[in-house]
Amino acid sequence: MRKMEVAVLGATGMIGQRFIQLLEEHPYFEIKGLYASERSEGKRLADVLKLKDHIFKEETLDAVIEQISPRKISKESRLAFSGLPSDIAKDYEVSLATAGVPVFSNASSHRMRPDVPVLIPEVNSPHLDLVKMQKTHGDRGFIVTNPNCSATGLAIPLKAIDNAYGLDMVVVTTFQAVSGAGYPGVPSIDILGNVIPYIRNEEEKMEMEILKMLGRLEGKSIVPADFTMLANCARVPVADGHLESVTMALREEPTVEELKKCLSGFRAEPQRLKLPIAPLVPIIVRDEENRPQPLMDANAGQPGRARGMAVTVGRLRKTGRFYKMFILSHNTIRGGAGGSVSNAELAYAKQLLK
Amino acid sequence: MRKMEVAVLGATGMIGQRFIQLLEEHPYFEIKGLYASERSEGKRLADVLKLKDHIFKEETLDAVIEQISPRKISKESRLAFSGLPSDIAKDYEVSLATAGVPVFSNASSHRMRPDVPVLIPEVNSPHLDLVKMQKTHGDRGFIVTNPNCSATGLAIPLKAIDNAYGLDMVVVTTFQAVSGAGYPGVPSIDILGNVIPYIRNEEEKMEMEILKMLGRLEGKSIVPADFTMLANCARVPVADGHLESVTMALREEPTVEELKKCLSGFRAEPQRLKLPIAPLVPIIVRDEENRPQPLMDANAGQPGRARGMAVTVGRLRKTGRFYKMFILSHNTIRGGAGGSVSNAELAYAKQLLK
Amino acid sequence: MRKMEVAVLGATGMIGQRFIQLLEEHPYFEIKGLYASERSEGKRLADVLKLKDHIFKEETLDAVIEQISPRKISKESRLAFSGLPSDIAKDYEVSLATAGVPVFSNASSHRMRPDVPVLIPEVNSPHLDLVKMQKTHGDRGFIVTNPNCSATGLAIPLKAIDNAYGLDMVVVTTFQAVSGAGYPGVPSIDILGNVIPYIRNEEEKMEMEILKMLGRLEGKSIVPADFTMLANCARVPVADGHLESVTMALREEPTVEELKKCLSGFRAEPQRLKLPIAPLVPIIVRDEENRPQPLMDANAGQPGRARGMAVTVGRLRKTGRFYKMFILSHNTIRGGAGGSVSNAELAYAKQLLK
Amino acid sequence: MRKMEVAVLGATGMIGQRFIQLLEEHPYFEIKGLYASERSEGKRLADVLKLKDHIFKEETLDAVIEQISPRKISKESRLAFSGLPSDIAKDYEVSLATAGVPVFSNASSHRMRPDVPVLIPEVNSPHLDLVKMQKTHGDRGFIVTNPNCSATGLAIPLKAIDNAYGLDMVVVTTFQAVSGAGYPGVPSIDILGNVIPYIRNEEEKMEMEILKMLGRLEGKSIVPADFTMLANCARVPVADGHLESVTMALREEPTVEELKKCLSGFRAEPQRLKLPIAPLVPIIVRDEENRPQPLMDANAGQPGRARGMAVTVGRLRKTGRFYKMFILSHNTIRGGAGGSVSNAELAYAKQLLK
Repeated sequence: MRKMEVAVLGATGMIGQRFIQLLEEHPYFEIKGLYASERSEGKRLADVLKLKDHIFKEETLDAVIEQISPRKISKESRLAFSGLPSDIAKDYEVSLATAGVPVFSNASSHRMRPDVPVLIPEVNSPHLDLVKMQKTHGDRGFIVTNPNCSATGLAIPLKAIDNAYGLDMVVVTTFQAVSGAGYPGVPSIDILGNVIPYIRNEEEKMEMEILKMLGRLEGKSIVPADFTMLANCARVPVADGHLESVTMALREEPTVEELKKCLSGFRAEPQRLKLPIAPLVPIIVRDEENRPQPLMDANAGQPGRARGMAVTVGRLRKTGRFYKMFILSHNTIRGGAGGSVSNAELAYAKQLLK
Repeated sequence: MRKMEVAVLGATGMIGQRFIQLLEEHPYFEIKGLYASERSEGKRLADVLKLKDHIFKEETLDAVIEQISPRKISKESRLAFSGLPSDIAKDYEVSLATAGVPVFSNASSHRMRPDVPVLIPEVNSPHLDLVKMQKTHGDRGFIVTNPNCSATGLAIPLKAIDNAYGLDMVVVTTFQAVSGAGYPGVPSIDILGNVIPYIRNEEEKMEMEILKMLGRLEGKSIVPADFTMLANCARVPVADGHLESVTMALREEPTVEELKKCLSGFRAEPQRLKLPIAPLVPIIVRDEENRPQPLMDANAGQPGRARGMAVTVGRLRKTGRFYKMFILSHNTIRGGAGGSVSNAELAYAKQLLK
Repeated sequence: MRKMEVAVLGATGMIGQRFIQLLEEHPYFEIKGLYASERSEGKRLADVLKLKDHIFKEETLDAVIEQISPRKISKESRLAFSGLPSDIAKDYEVSLATAGVPVFSNASSHRMRPDVPVLIPEVNSPHLDLVKMQKTHGDRGFIVTNPNCSATGLAIPLKAIDNAYGLDMVVVTTFQAVSGAGYPGVPSIDILGNVIPYIRNEEEKMEMEILKMLGRLEGKSIVPADFTMLANCARVPVADGHLESVTMALREEPTVEELKKCLSGFRAEPQRLKLPIAPLVPIIVRDEENRPQPLMDANAGQPGRARGMAVTVGRLRKTGRFYKMFILSHNTIRGGAGGSVSNAELAYAKQLLK
Repeated sequence: MRKMEVAVLGATGMIGQRFIQLLEEHPYFEIKGLYASERSEGKRLADVLKLKDHIFKEETLDAVIEQISPRKISKESRLAFSGLPSDIAKDYEVSLATAGVPVFSNASSHRMRPDVPVLIPEVNSPHLDLVKMQKTHGDRGFIVTNPNCSATGLAIPLKAIDNAYGLDMVVVTTFQAVSGAGYPGVPSIDILGNVIPYIRNEEEKMEMEILKMLGRLEGKSIVPADFTMLANCARVPVADGHLESVTMALREEPTVEELKKCLSGFRAEPQRLKLPIAPLVPIIVRDEENRPQPLMDANAGQPGRARGMAVTVGRLRKTGRFYKMFILSHNTIRGGAGGSVSNAELAYAKQLLK
């Protein structure tokens, strides 16, 4: 079967390079072009390398970056993965969709548009239907977004719990890795030996995106979930992997063991469809007293393409009627490029990429 | 006026050396002896130096460590400050108190004894009266503890808020500095570029000590406060300063501005008594969007003895009926040695150190 | 005595803010204006704060940044301290000098000009006379530079050793702090848990500046020193304080003890003139086996204005005919703003600031 | 072919666990027993896990640690890999060798014994013959050591250069990772945001071991190489990968290009014998201006068993008649467990493991 040719937008950034990593040997997609701003035009990937823990193939490192051109992309590529900064993504992604190119985007620009899904196939695959509402876009074109990196890791276990026991209140505090700020991102002098208890707009995004994703599609729009959702976001001196402390009140009162089983047994559409990047076990529950940890669990997921796609949950506890846990996921894989690759795989499986 | 001679126990550790720092030029107390385990006997402070940010006087650096001996201490010193590890503290502190020496301890061993106060003069100065219940101790002897480092920074703003608006629920997640684990403490290979979402017994201590301190002394015992108190504790690669994310429900519904005023205007007994180590402003409220930060705020407090004794609160927000804030305090000063020095100053002022 | 009014250029940067710190209570100089690029015009210092370890006075924090204007500066200020980036410094500093303003600069732009001294008062105070060769500048105007941060810490002990025993070969490897890269400087994702063995142009600067400073002024120009000078420069995840490993061959063969005495006994013109910022002991020799360390020794120097102005030397060893030592100095104080303040104090004492 | 059963000593430590990692699927050897001190007896590997970047097989994680017993080991295993601390290794390793067990050791205890080789197969494979001098050991038994971690990464490129151009002087300064100190190793409070310019005995080991390895076996003993070898060792806050700055004088004067070719073209006995763990290219020369870096190059070597076994060299420069370069190797793989596995593979190929 011939692979679909795809464009990677923002190829000089942290998310763009994770897209390249995940698409190097993908069974459905192959990279046709790497795009970034004018400044990087003509440079090889090797000259603008940001990832420190992936060894690209020589031919990938030699690929030359081009300046973004919606026209060129619409001619040469069947779909686009966007790791563009949000301010730039806003117009380019609309141009591409209007030119008939499906866009799978990590940018926040369009996430809260009523006709754009914030999609995690494990959480809200029916929301993909929203793309049919995107009237102003070209025939084949549409925009699908993956949520914020910190919302992704949280949404998956929350979905499993909400399904089984009903969420009433969720209080989350994040320990976010610096790779989440892109490149150059956080100046080292600000974060070495320090914690910054603020990430612009992050708490608002987490709260809104979680409620949108856990909401129901009714007719042409999404009715957000109605539990109490409170986020506190901080940056820590960690390279990859967002850790989150979660305190919850549920509508029912399961035992800790029941909750563990509900989480570790959770399977969803990507697992049923055996999508290439999907983790066999989307939520890994650990019993050790001191896990999950960024250094040990960010890359959770079976070896191969799903590495970094599983969410790890640990320290499940019950205090009174409240439940507490720590969760961790890879912010630029599961919570970034991998999220959008997963979305494109779902669209492919649902034959939305004609 | 002649100063009281005091002993410092655990002089080779992180807390012990903060005691030495704070007592180098104290108006009430002067160091008579430095004590530690047999292993360090005969070494100079300079040989076992742990603090990196305090420049001791030459004569202090030359002071020689002695092996702990309750008998010797009870003869030579009027009171003792204990930075001993909890397992060792347990018996030694009882021996000292029984020998008539008031002990101001940072160890957790006796904190939950019904007749031992967990004391922060800004929070629960009346609890100091509990020492009168300590019948088994010698005539002058008693034990007063300061709370866990992570509980201290939280208890002070919670007290201000509880006084004014009544606490209903508190969910806290901590970002704790490595100095809180003592020395050698956390192995570097475990924490460099990492977060460890577990500190043994820390969540239990935080929850119990907060409720004990904010409880009322009724007759001969303390009735714990009855709001919901939920703690999640993690270690981050930061040297000094515990940051905490706090989400609260209150019994009343003040505006954010009212809450800020309640916190920044809070004064208590140490301020009224003008105790030497007391911060003029115990709670500093910051308006910057990205404070408090360990590197910038751990040493809050007016220059001099109170450096590191103020708690900093920032990012006060209201979402629905919930309130959110980040707080920060110096874990080995305000939350350690400084806490016990403050307790001894209060006991001095109340003439309990005859 | 009335203080001289001075301008600080580059007030939003790491070096600029160290100038402000050092000039907050200086006996000769007082800040008249803070200058930076157009982008920061109108902001308060508090809004662009970079330093994490200095608590500015409230009135300093409220000072408003202005856009650089050589004309305005030449009217209002008697001299200028420049913490500008080198590309911008080049023209502005010439404009200022031409307008009659003495400029004490941390920028590298003019350091290798034959008529501009690279000055450390402890090392080459006679070189200050070079300013008389700066014919194209206005009547009072001239440019004096301080050397690169990594060259400063090295030049001082090398001068002491060269005076006494003659240098033959110096091989240095640096461990440079991130504050040396300015702000935003090194992206955190590049340096967390990592070392970058490259700093653009740094090795060339070190080698040339050291030889120029240790050279002799002959007539109107400087004859560089002629020992072998080899530099290897790397960036480490440290906030402040450049550590350097130094291996040397000397023309004579002193004992290690003699070398220690030569270093610890070294005094120079700033000490004789009792210049305000001068450390009483410019080179502190430590006997501990594991010093100097950035966290413990960056701020060496007697308390007050000279904090961070002393160089610390440790681990002096002799292997065969070679000598080895580690040195450390504060890169943005001794090796930055403090260097230029020291230069201005020397010029003041020598009555070059009429 | 049946695999040889081997024992891993020190299985709870950093090096011991790297042995386990490298032996999980080795073609010659299979793990028969994991040994450590009495304290860990009966624990599973999962309970004492130190490595953060390797995912062990479930059955490996379940393996139970036994207390070291030379008798048991000599009955059940054909050879032993020792990751024991040097003080403990000293006697145990002799006991094992005397009991007829070949010991491949990472400990320093026996490295300078005249009849014990400090072996790197790429550097001095003929030295393996020294084991025939070990008369006091049992019939099959002998001790072979791998050098210190910091000496390993240096010896390989030095050997290539010495072969081609003759070494005259080598000055090295190390930037050593914390994993080199074992576990718990360096306390985090000492190294976070800091550099420690001292590692006990490290400089002496580097200097002596390099000269021993680059020496010649004459008759029954080794004549050390006679170039000048000067080491300066420091610890940096990096997890894995020792970076070293190397300044050299050679007997000939090649161009930089010639030197690069000499290094990248270097092949030795392990490559000729196609030993399983041997890197196809033992020295990787990089042209980027800012490499090697610990985060990017510690795991150099072709994918699979040789990951972390190649040495990376970068920034080759010539200044006058001196040459400068930075080198990097994985300290617990190439410079630790991998070194001894490589030694055992050589002994196996040379039929010394009857």
